[in-house]
Amino acid sequence: MTKWVYAFGDGKAEGRSEMRDLLGGKGANLAEMSNLGLPVPPGLTVTTEVCTYYYANGHTYPSDLKAQVDEALAQIGRIAGGTLGDPARPLLLSVRSGARVSMPGMMDTVLNLGLNPDTAEGLAKLTGNPRFAYDSYRRFIQMYSDVVLGVDHALFEEILDEEKDSKGIELDTDLDADDLKHIAGLYKARVEKELGKPFPDDVQEQLWGAIGAVFGSWHSPRANTYRKLNHIPEDWGTAVSVQAMVFGNRGETSATGVAFTRDPATGEKLLYGEFLINAQGEDVVAGIRTPQPISKLVRERQGGKRPSMEEAMPDAYAELKAIGDRLEQHYRDMQDVEFTVQEGKLFMLQTRAGKRTAEAALKAAVDMVGEGLIDKTVAVTRVEPAALNQLLHPTLDPDAPREQITVGLGASPGAATGEVAFTAEEAEKLAADHKDVILVRAETSPEDIHGMHAARGILTARGGMTSHAAVVARGMGRPCVSGAGMLKIDAAKGEMTAGDVVIKRGEILTIDGATGQVFKGRVGLRQPELTGDFGTLMQWADEVRRLKVRTNADTPTDAATARKFGAEGIGLCRTEHMFFDAERIIAVRQMILADTEEGRKEALAKLLPIQRGDFEAIFTEMAGLPVTIRLLDPPLHEFLPHKEEEFEEVAHAAGSSVAKLRARATILHEANPMLGHRGCRLGITYPEIYEMQARAILEAALAVEEKGGAPVQLEIMIPLVGFKAELDALAARIAGVAEAIKADKGKVPAYMIGTMIELPRAALRAGQIAETAQFFSFGTNDLTQTTIGISRDDAGMFLGEYLNKGLIARDPFVSIDVEGVGELVRIAAERGRATRANIKLGICGEHGGDPDSIRFCHDSGLDYVSCSPFRVPVARLAAAQAALEKSRRDV
Amino acid sequence: MTKWVYAFGDGKAEGRSEMRDLLGGKGANLAEMSNLGLPVPPGLTVTTEVCTYYYANGHTYPSDLKAQVDEALAQIGRIAGGTLGDPARPLLLSVRSGARVSMPGMMDTVLNLGLNPDTAEGLAKLTGNPRFAYDSYRRFIQMYSDVVLGVDHALFEEILDEEKDSKGIELDTDLDADDLKHIAGLYKARVEKELGKPFPDDVQEQLWGAIGAVFGSWHSPRANTYRKLNHIPEDWGTAVSVQAMVFGNRGETSATGVAFTRDPATGEKLLYGEFLINAQGEDVVAGIRTPQPISKLVRERQGGKRPSMEEAMPDAYAELKAIGDRLEQHYRDMQDVEFTVQEGKLFMLQTRAGKRTAEAALKAAVDMVGEGLIDKTVAVTRVEPAALNQLLHPTLDPDAPREQITVGLGASPGAATGEVAFTAEEAEKLAADHKDVILVRAETSPEDIHGMHAARGILTARGGMTSHAAVVARGMGRPCVSGAGMLKIDAAKGEMTAGDVVIKRGEILTIDGATGQVFKGRVGLRQPELTGDFGTLMQWADEVRRLKVRTNADTPTDAATARKFGAEGIGLCRTEHMFFDAERIIAVRQMILADTEEGRKEALAKLLPIQRGDFEAIFTEMAGLPVTIRLLDPPLHEFLPHKEEEFEEVAHAAGSSVAKLRARATILHEANPMLGHRGCRLGITYPEIYEMQARAILEAALAVEEKGGAPVQLEIMIPLVGFKAELDALAARIAGVAEAIKADKGKVPAYMIGTMIELPRAALRAGQIAETAQFFSFGTNDLTQTTIGISRDDAGMFLGEYLNKGLIARDPFVSIDVEGVGELVRIAAERGRATRANIKLGICGEHGGDPDSIRFCHDSGLDYVSCSPFRVPVARLAAAQAALEKSRRDV
Repeated sequence: MTKWVYAFGDGKAEGRSEMRDLLGGKGANLAEMSNLGLPVPPGLTVTTEVCTYYYANGHTYPSDLKAQVDEALAQIGRIAGGTLGDPARPLLLSVRSGARVSMPGMMDTVLNLGLNPDTAEGLAKLTGNPRFAYDSYRRFIQMYSDVVLGVDHALFEEILDEEKDSKGIELDTDLDADDLKHIAGLYKARVEKELGKPFPDDVQEQLWGAIGAVFGSWHSPRANTYRKLNHIPEDWGTAVSVQAMVFGNRGETSATGVAFTRDPATGEKLLYGEFLINAQGEDVVAGIRTPQPISKLVRERQGGKRPSMEEAMPDAYAELKAIGDRLEQHYRDMQDVEFTVQEGKLFMLQTRAGKRTAEAALKAAVDMVGEGLIDKTVAVTRVEPAALNQLLHPTLDPDAPREQITVGLGASPGAATGEVAFTAEEAEKLAADHKDVILVRAETSPEDIHGMHAARGILTARGGMTSHAAVVARGMGRPCVSGAGMLKIDAAKGEMTAGDVVIKRGEILTIDGATGQVFKGRVGLRQPELTGDFGTLMQWADEVRRLKVRTNADTPTDAATARKFGAEGIGLCRTEHMFFDAERIIAVRQMILADTEEGRKEALAKLLPIQRGDFEAIFTEMAGLPVTIRLLDPPLHEFLPHKEEEFEEVAHAAGSSVAKLRARATILHEANPMLGHRGCRLGITYPEIYEMQARAILEAALAVEEKGGAPVQLEIMIPLVGFKAELDALAARIAGVAEAIKADKGKVPAYMIGTMIELPRAALRAGQIAETAQFFSFGTNDLTQTTIGISRDDAGMFLGEYLNKGLIARDPFVSIDVEGVGELVRIAAERGRATRANIKLGICGEHGGDPDSIRFCHDSGLDYVSCSPFRVPVARLAAAQAALEKSRRDV
Repeated sequence: MTKWVYAFGDGKAEGRSEMRDLLGGKGANLAEMSNLGLPVPPGLTVTTEVCTYYYANGHTYPSDLKAQVDEALAQIGRIAGGTLGDPARPLLLSVRSGARVSMPGMMDTVLNLGLNPDTAEGLAKLTGNPRFAYDSYRRFIQMYSDVVLGVDHALFEEILDEEKDSKGIELDTDLDADDLKHIAGLYKARVEKELGKPFPDDVQEQLWGAIGAVFGSWHSPRANTYRKLNHIPEDWGTAVSVQAMVFGNRGETSATGVAFTRDPATGEKLLYGEFLINAQGEDVVAGIRTPQPISKLVRERQGGKRPSMEEAMPDAYAELKAIGDRLEQHYRDMQDVEFTVQEGKLFMLQTRAGKRTAEAALKAAVDMVGEGLIDKTVAVTRVEPAALNQLLHPTLDPDAPREQITVGLGASPGAATGEVAFTAEEAEKLAADHKDVILVRAETSPEDIHGMHAARGILTARGGMTSHAAVVARGMGRPCVSGAGMLKIDAAKGEMTAGDVVIKRGEILTIDGATGQVFKGRVGLRQPELTGDFGTLMQWADEVRRLKVRTNADTPTDAATARKFGAEGIGLCRTEHMFFDAERIIAVRQMILADTEEGRKEALAKLLPIQRGDFEAIFTEMAGLPVTIRLLDPPLHEFLPHKEEEFEEVAHAAGSSVAKLRARATILHEANPMLGHRGCRLGITYPEIYEMQARAILEAALAVEEKGGAPVQLEIMIPLVGFKAELDALAARIAGVAEAIKADKGKVPAYMIGTMIELPRAALRAGQIAETAQFFSFGTNDLTQTTIGISRDDAGMFLGEYLNKGLIARDPFVSIDVEGVGELVRIAAERGRATRANIKLGICGEHGGDPDSIRFCHDSGLDYVSCSPFRVPVARLAAAQAALEKSRRDV
């Protein structure tokens, strides 16, 4: 015989906390608390297997379920002292859903179940409190009708308001027992009118109606969508917990509340929460009365006048505090509990791990190791890596006043305030005057980079999470809100409009790059504190992770920031970002627009010393750590002039004409630049560009060594390789440059040659490519674009709808598409290693800073991830968690 | 002991024709002819293994090679009656290279080797013909110096001319023995001056010098490039054949010539070729004297006055004819032979399979089956599928005069002549006046399609083999030359310039879409004749092929053409091509520019009956054969208006404003449209478009059936699927439409749902996608773009250089990239079949008409290929050859 029902109460239980799959989170923890001897009202849990049975058998129950429920109910009655439906000693019940994980869209709670005209009257007599009895009754009718019978709860508010009007009173509390009894009658009549059948007085019908509603809600549209988005299998099912009611609304010695065992905002060890005297849980939600703090210290800090629970109910408080400590010891984690005090006696209604801010998670984790509650490896799992962003950037002061004008995508975390500039030039000018600037653009392009550098934060109207603005801002650690589609920007006029609000050049704006919110005027900021706890946890993370963490850095400043955050090398140094500097861009354009090899070489000769200087500074900063430098990647037309005066500048520098340059620019135009003449294809057609870069790199490394610096671990990376022949041809060119330097200077630094794996073909042919490549770096941005066939610049038109409709679970540019892109990464890793066992494997796309993607990288056996400097701590922690998770799975 | 040398002569040989790998093509066939007892001058072949040894051992020979050569030389001397270097009975030799396959860039031939002052004098005495002896000597010096010593042959021409001038004579033949002896001396002096060392008189030095030159030429730059492009392994090596000389220049009873056993242009069975009396082979090449036809019939047809070989040397002719027949019987193929008649005696110097036109290949293959020489399956392999294009399109009359002005890519075969039009509108207008038109554009876009339809041929300045112009032209069967980069087109001015030539609107132009040539004025055309032989061969091909052949057809006309060529269904019907018609485009634009669902539905309602009509006509034409219809694929902005009046038209039709439409058009703009909002992504975001199309398809099929037509084998295809969820969502929408039709009309036609596999992700997830898809059609155009990360519109910037540099062997848009794209096709086929054993697999990209790609499809187990109508016969034949090849490999 299958056991469908697990009872608990009176210091023991048939279930345990480990039985979460069977009993749901709520049921398992209620059983556990009973086993611990804590004061839990008796109850029963109908298992998730019943839910599965229910759907597999045409919405019917196992034949022996009712008998098992009845038996458990009898036990509940014995403990609580009452019987369901017995007017003399009525047993009242709460009914709640409880899946393995908390899930929106499920039926939540029905309270006071078991009341009908007879038991309400009985309850009135038994408690000597008719007003309590009839208030409970009319609340039950309203709640049950709403969540079980589907009658709009507004109808009941209407009746209540009419009654108060007719009696000329304002507050619910002014209604007496008779009023409430009358209202209960009106409620029932209204239900019958709505549904065409009466509200059930039969308590068994009430109970099975509520249980059925819980199971039915497992397939509510909202629950289905949530499951799909969160990959929760349909066959998990939900459990139902049925529990004897206790009442926080039985007078001034009764109360209800919620508490955390530590402050969920800061992690401070104290009982943090709120309670309401003489109330049921729903009153807290309704917001009619203001709850009071639990502990005295918090009340004093907040300057509150009304007493805390510690002061008003010292005994119950002391017991709650002791229970909180007991639960923390037991669960070895901070708990979030619900409780009720009924006429002075404390009852526990729920416990679960408490949600907390990153700051709190960090402090609690480190503190608990100090307290001996957990060990370091557990502490490492207790902080959400993505949440670290909250700690690394300025954030909005939560108490500061603000006027939100629009919201876009939180594209790069951190908050920033400054004067609005509409062009990169304006931004630079203001920054030169020591003004804080917010750069506002319809969308950014590589030409805006100097303006982005100058700005405190960036706001764009177009583009998604991986638009140019978002990617570059994250790389720079600048807060960024992208794709604020409601924004109308008129740069020429120097103003932007969001709804009715017009903001002109130079006015103040504040953005929150974590939430995507945009505010008019200045909003107070909180600066990040990289406290000792942060460093401690990072160190513990480093002790357990296997993946190395490098950074994507194009400048010495980026490199320095990343090293501060613990980067162990540069995984991607994009040489093209060096090309946009105002001094250099003319020479770059001269090179591109040259139509002869000599013309290009002349321009390249100007660029060589500049690039060499850049590399020298970066190598010096990295002090002997590995540095992967990618040779020129983007299509040349990204660097092209647009304005007449820019063409003139270049024409002057190159001794050519504007007309000729324009003609050449037209030739360079591409229909699909992402799939065009870029990456190593440039190296093949214009070998002199890569030769100049190779020379700059090797000479810079030599110079650093000659000045006594640590030898650079040089990794020269060829982008967009699809064919081994491409890599071979370019590796030979670079070897030629190295030989020339050696012939000239007597020595040349050691270097490795490798390639990006960013085309499906490269992944498939990795075995062959690894004959030449000494390392692979997975460029998963481009690999995602080509594998799925979506351009990240254009995906905004449909990707949002894909996410909304649940066609995909996550934006594949944010978190790696494990099934598609991931398979290619695994294929390439496997084939590359088969050819060259010690080939170095890393990832340098945006995914290198995403915890889920980092887990994938760990599981796939890569050697390192590389991410933007501000994501380095995120990656270190995520890598540690991935290692712990894998070793747990492998046990 | 390794055998390095294979001797032949006197009716026997150590080698055989099967030993081509070891002896090269030439050596193997010389041995074979000896074995057959044919009159072959004795000789020896140094094997390809010596070449391999030579390169593996620092350009040295095996120690026992010389002894083996000497032994074979002694045998040659015995048979030929002479000794190398013996002035009394000098043996003269020819030395030739011979790899497994004929290969440009290799050293060709040295004749008369073995002459020096002593042997020349000896030869003069022996033959009693001093002029012959010294002419041979000076020829030898010139040839040897040129090909072995690398002395420019122009230097010798100079000396010869000076000598003739000084003697006041014009023709070489007027030089006497003393003159020639003197010239030989001058030649040798000149060589010594050039090289700083004397011309070798030592005959062994001459011989080994020539052998070394052959081996050295295996790694000439030209040979290396050729090998790379043709995937010929370096380690094959070349053989060297050394053969006793016979002389066609020993007087009026001597001659030299070449002959085909059938006419290589027509296939007619007669001895076809040319000969020269009293000449050596080089005289034919030099073109000083005009050779005469071999057979009398040919001479009469050509109206020649001088006697044919049949008339001048009837005995030698009869023997040659008999040998030709014998060789055809032996090799069971048409032969191309070289021969020399020395004083009345015939010698065979070479035989090999003769190159022939498609027409000749076809006739010879069919005739040989009739003659019992070969069977049908061999006949099927005897015609190059790609060459069939010559038979299916008009071609330039080879004898017509012409003035070539430029050359582009031969993008769609066939020749066309007509008046030049620079816009689609002009082209239509001229065509309406019954003029033949050549449409000339910088590049074409979908808006030019009606103009392309109206034109006889298309010429573009930009774009490669898979540019829009090329793809559409092939689809329509219109000749097309694309990417004629030297062309400057000024459409506004109504003229184009190629070099100095200016051609104005309305002037006559001729293009050859097979070769890419462009001619000024009219060039005579030959119309194709689909003779009985063509049908016969196609029928034999159909008997052996396993792959079905379908067509890509968007109109009833295309469908009819394709059926005429033997298409067994439509593999790709692109619904978007129907959208560009002038009547429809306004409604299409109205739909695209609508910013509400209602606006779109209103426009779609106008399109529904039009599409239904289109489908009905196509279904009727296909008479029950399978028809795969792809729902709307291209990004919407392809259909957008560009000109002000077009915007006005749409604004009028939609009751909207031009400004609003322009704003919407801007929103639709994409950075990389190929990776943008297209294919099934449109179906997801605007489901009403696909619903309209599904309704049009199903209602059309119903209408055809109701009119008594054969039930349509309907296959509805969803493009650009990357996720199973996309296909599921759209399949459900289509099922909804089908249900609605069934509810409305009482029945609905059966249909299959399938998907394009054109994204790497789709290929990898094929197992999952096949849970829903009943067929896969590989869209290898897009799959190539995404797998290799190249846009076919932009690849022109670098792909040519990749081909030139040998980085890739073939344009991957022309012939499938077997290693990359091909692996994804195989993965998808395998995973798809694992889920759904009977899933239908086909290919519908441009590759469906490429013989190499078709071989790949056959080997990968696909069910069908689909190609443009004019390629259907090519595909039928290629499919047959693929089947025969595979079964041969599998034996």
